[in-house]
Amino acid sequence: MALIVQKYGGTSVGDTEKIRRVVRRVIETKKQGNDMVVVLSAMAGETNKLISLAHQITEDPDPRELDVLVSTGEQITIALFAIAAKTMGNDARSFLGHQVRILTDNAYGKARITDVDTSPIRENLRQGCIVVIAGFQGIDADGNITTLGRGGSDTTAVAVAAALDADLCEIFTDVEGVFTTDPNICSDARKIDRISYDELLEMASLGAKVMEIRSVEFAKRYNVPLHVRSSFNNNPGTMVVQEEKEMEDRVVTGVTYNKSEARITLTKVPDKPGIAAKIFTPISDANIAVDMIIQNTRASDLTDLTFTVPKADFKKAMEIVQRIGKEIGCERVMGDENIAKVSLIGLGMRNHVGIAGKMFGTLAAHNINIMMISTSEIKISAVIDEKYTELAVRVLHDAFELGDTKNILETT
Amino acid sequence: MALIVQKYGGTSVGDTEKIRRVVRRVIETKKQGNDMVVVLSAMAGETNKLISLAHQITEDPDPRELDVLVSTGEQITIALFAIAAKTMGNDARSFLGHQVRILTDNAYGKARITDVDTSPIRENLRQGCIVVIAGFQGIDADGNITTLGRGGSDTTAVAVAAALDADLCEIFTDVEGVFTTDPNICSDARKIDRISYDELLEMASLGAKVMEIRSVEFAKRYNVPLHVRSSFNNNPGTMVVQEEKEMEDRVVTGVTYNKSEARITLTKVPDKPGIAAKIFTPISDANIAVDMIIQNTRASDLTDLTFTVPKADFKKAMEIVQRIGKEIGCERVMGDENIAKVSLIGLGMRNHVGIAGKMFGTLAAHNINIMMISTSEIKISAVIDEKYTELAVRVLHDAFELGDTKNILETT
Repeated sequence: MALIVQKYGGTSVGDTEKIRRVVRRVIETKKQGNDMVVVLSAMAGETNKLISLAHQITEDPDPRELDVLVSTGEQITIALFAIAAKTMGNDARSFLGHQVRILTDNAYGKARITDVDTSPIRENLRQGCIVVIAGFQGIDADGNITTLGRGGSDTTAVAVAAALDADLCEIFTDVEGVFTTDPNICSDARKIDRISYDELLEMASLGAKVMEIRSVEFAKRYNVPLHVRSSFNNNPGTMVVQEEKEMEDRVVTGVTYNKSEARITLTKVPDKPGIAAKIFTPISDANIAVDMIIQNTRASDLTDLTFTVPKADFKKAMEIVQRIGKEIGCERVMGDENIAKVSLIGLGMRNHVGIAGKMFGTLAAHNINIMMISTSEIKISAVIDEKYTELAVRVLHDAFELGDTKNILETT
Repeated sequence: MALIVQKYGGTSVGDTEKIRRVVRRVIETKKQGNDMVVVLSAMAGETNKLISLAHQITEDPDPRELDVLVSTGEQITIALFAIAAKTMGNDARSFLGHQVRILTDNAYGKARITDVDTSPIRENLRQGCIVVIAGFQGIDADGNITTLGRGGSDTTAVAVAAALDADLCEIFTDVEGVFTTDPNICSDARKIDRISYDELLEMASLGAKVMEIRSVEFAKRYNVPLHVRSSFNNNPGTMVVQEEKEMEDRVVTGVTYNKSEARITLTKVPDKPGIAAKIFTPISDANIAVDMIIQNTRASDLTDLTFTVPKADFKKAMEIVQRIGKEIGCERVMGDENIAKVSLIGLGMRNHVGIAGKMFGTLAAHNINIMMISTSEIKISAVIDEKYTELAVRVLHDAFELGDTKNILETT
C-alpha cells in the first residue's frame, strides 16, 4: 500500500463529465490499496474568466483581492470532485488552503509555500477518505488568501507530497510525458522513461512546457518522485527522479528550443572596469532578465558585448542600452529579434567529450550559423537565426540518435 | 460619526458596473463621516449557476461540499468590490467567513450564526478601511465552510451589526421599502416609514418578500435598527425598529396574501383523545409544516378537522392523510389547492376592537366566502378561494384606508 498524490490540471477537470472521469481514475488507484490525495486546478478557462472580471474594473487590481478572486476557481473544482466521489460511494473531503493548512509567505500572486500542516490530511486518510486539496492557493501567517502563480497547482501537489513523505506524486497533464524534443517538430520524438530533476529543470527553463520550474525544484529539494503522465489514457509517462547511474550513459537526453528571446549587441565598447555594471544595472533596475552574456575581446582596448533579453522586454531594453551606449561611447548598438536558442541537455555530457563539437559540426553541415554559445555542466545552448529553428532541432535530434528506434525500424 | 452596516443583494451587484455603483454609494456614506461595513451577496444568478453545476453530477449533492461550492459566489463579489474601492482611492479589505470569523453550527445549507469575532473588523475600521464581508457564509467549530440558506446575507449583515453594536443596518434591495401591501396589486400601496420588528415578522411569514424572517428575528433579539431601502435611488426606505407608542395608533399596518398553501379536510372524525396526534405526527415525521389547524365540533362525538400545508407538500400530505383517514374511520378526506390566505397586520389591533368584524364584513360585502380564520395578537388571517385574492387585498386595503392619500386626492 502506497500513499499517492495525484494532480490534475485544468483541461483534465474542464467540465463535470471530465471531473467524473478523473474521480473514476482516482477511485481505481485507491481500490488497488493506495491512500489517495488529489490536488486540482481550476476548470480550464475559469481563472482567466475571473481575471477578466477584475480587469473590467481596472488594469491593475489590488493583489490581495485578486488572490481572493482567482482562488475561487480551485474551490469550485474540489467541491465538484468531492460531490462526484461521494455519489460514487467513496468518502471524499475537500480542503482549501486555510483548511489544510498550506502556509505561504505573503507575496500575493506568486507566494511561496513555507509549511504544510499534514495532520488533517493524515486523519482523513486514516478514515479511508479521498483527500481533495485546492491547488494554487495557500494562506499567509495573518490568514490572508494567497496564490502561487501560474502552474501553482503543480507546486501544491509536490509540496503536499513532500510534507506527507508520499511514495509518489503523479502529475496528470495533456501530454504523455517528457519527450526527447517537441513532437510537433520531430515526429519520431520519443517519450523519456526516466529523467533526473536537473535535466528536467534545464529542459523546463529552456522552453519545454511540461512542468513549472518551481515545482520541479521543490521535488528535487525534498526528493519527491514525480510521474508526469497523460490524464487521457493509462500509459506510463515519465518518471522524474534523483540521478541514476544509467542516466549518465545517455550522452544527450533531449533537444529543446526557445524563440522568446532577442539579442542586443554593443560594438567597440571601451574595455574598462565597471563598464558591464554600467550597462546591466539599469537593465536589471527595469526588471528585465538577461539570459546569455558574451563578451569578445578585440585587439586593443575595445570589446564587443552581446546578450539576450525576453522578446517582451526588447524595446524597453533597446532604449536603455542606446542611452547607455552613448554615455560610454561604444560604436554601435544593434538589436535582433529573429533569433532562437537551441539546446542539448543530458547528464552524460559530464563524462562524454566531443558533444559540443558534434553539435556545432552538425549545425555547420546544414549551413546554420551559430551566433552565441553558452554551456553548463549538463547542457549546451546555441543561438541561431530563428528561421532555422525547426531544422536545427531535427538534425540534432537525428545526430544524437534520440528518435524512436521502433519508428525508424518500421519506416526502413 | 456612526458605524453603519450596509447589505447589498445579488441584483445590486449583478455585474462589475453595478458593483462600481455600489462602491460609489458606500464611499459617499463614508465621506459623511461614517465607519462602513459592507455585506455582499453573490452576483445575481451566480448561486443558481453553481448549484446547477452540482446538479449536473447528482440531484442530491453532499451538503458539506455544496456549501464549499456555493460560498464561492460571495467570495467573487467581495473581491471585486474591494478591487473597485481601492481603484477609487479608498482602502478596502475583503473578509470571508473564516477570516472575520463568523462562527456557525454545522448544519450545512442552513447554518445558524453562533458568534462573530469583531476584532479584525474593528481593527480595519480604525485604520479607515471599508470592511467588506462575504454574506451567506460562515465556518463551523472544525473550520468547515457553512452557508446560512437563501437570504443568508441579510442574516450576516444583521449578525455583524449586532456584534459590532452598529448604529444602523441598511438592507439595500430592489424595492423601496416595506409597503402597506403588494404594489403590483394595489397601485396606491404606500411605503411604510416605520414598522416594528413584530409587524414585519408577521408580514414576512405571511408572504411579503422583503427580508428573510430569520434576519428580522435576529435584529429584534439584538435590537438592531434596520433600514430597508432601494439600491437604485437615495429615497428613504422603511425603518424597522422596536415598538413605538405611535405605532399602536395605526389600526392596521399592512395587508398580505399567500397563495402557497393548500387545504386538507377530514370530515366526521371520531372525536377521541389522541386523534390529532395520530394525524399530525406522521405529517411532521414527513417534514411537512402544518400552518393553520381548525377543528369544528359537530353535534355527537364527530368532528371536522381542516388544516393547511405548503402546496409543494400537498400530494405527499394527502397520501398520508388518506391512509390515516381510513385507519381512524373518518367520513371523507378532501383536498383543495386553490386557496389563498389574506391577512391584516398591525400593532393597533391590540387596542382596537371591531377589526375582525370589519374585515369579515368587507369580504362578505364583496361575496368572498371565508373558509378558515386564524388570529394572533397583531394579525387576522382568512383563507379564501384563490381566485378572489387580488380583490380581497384591494377591498381590505381600501376599507382600512391604507392607500396613499396623495394619490387619492390626485385622482378625485
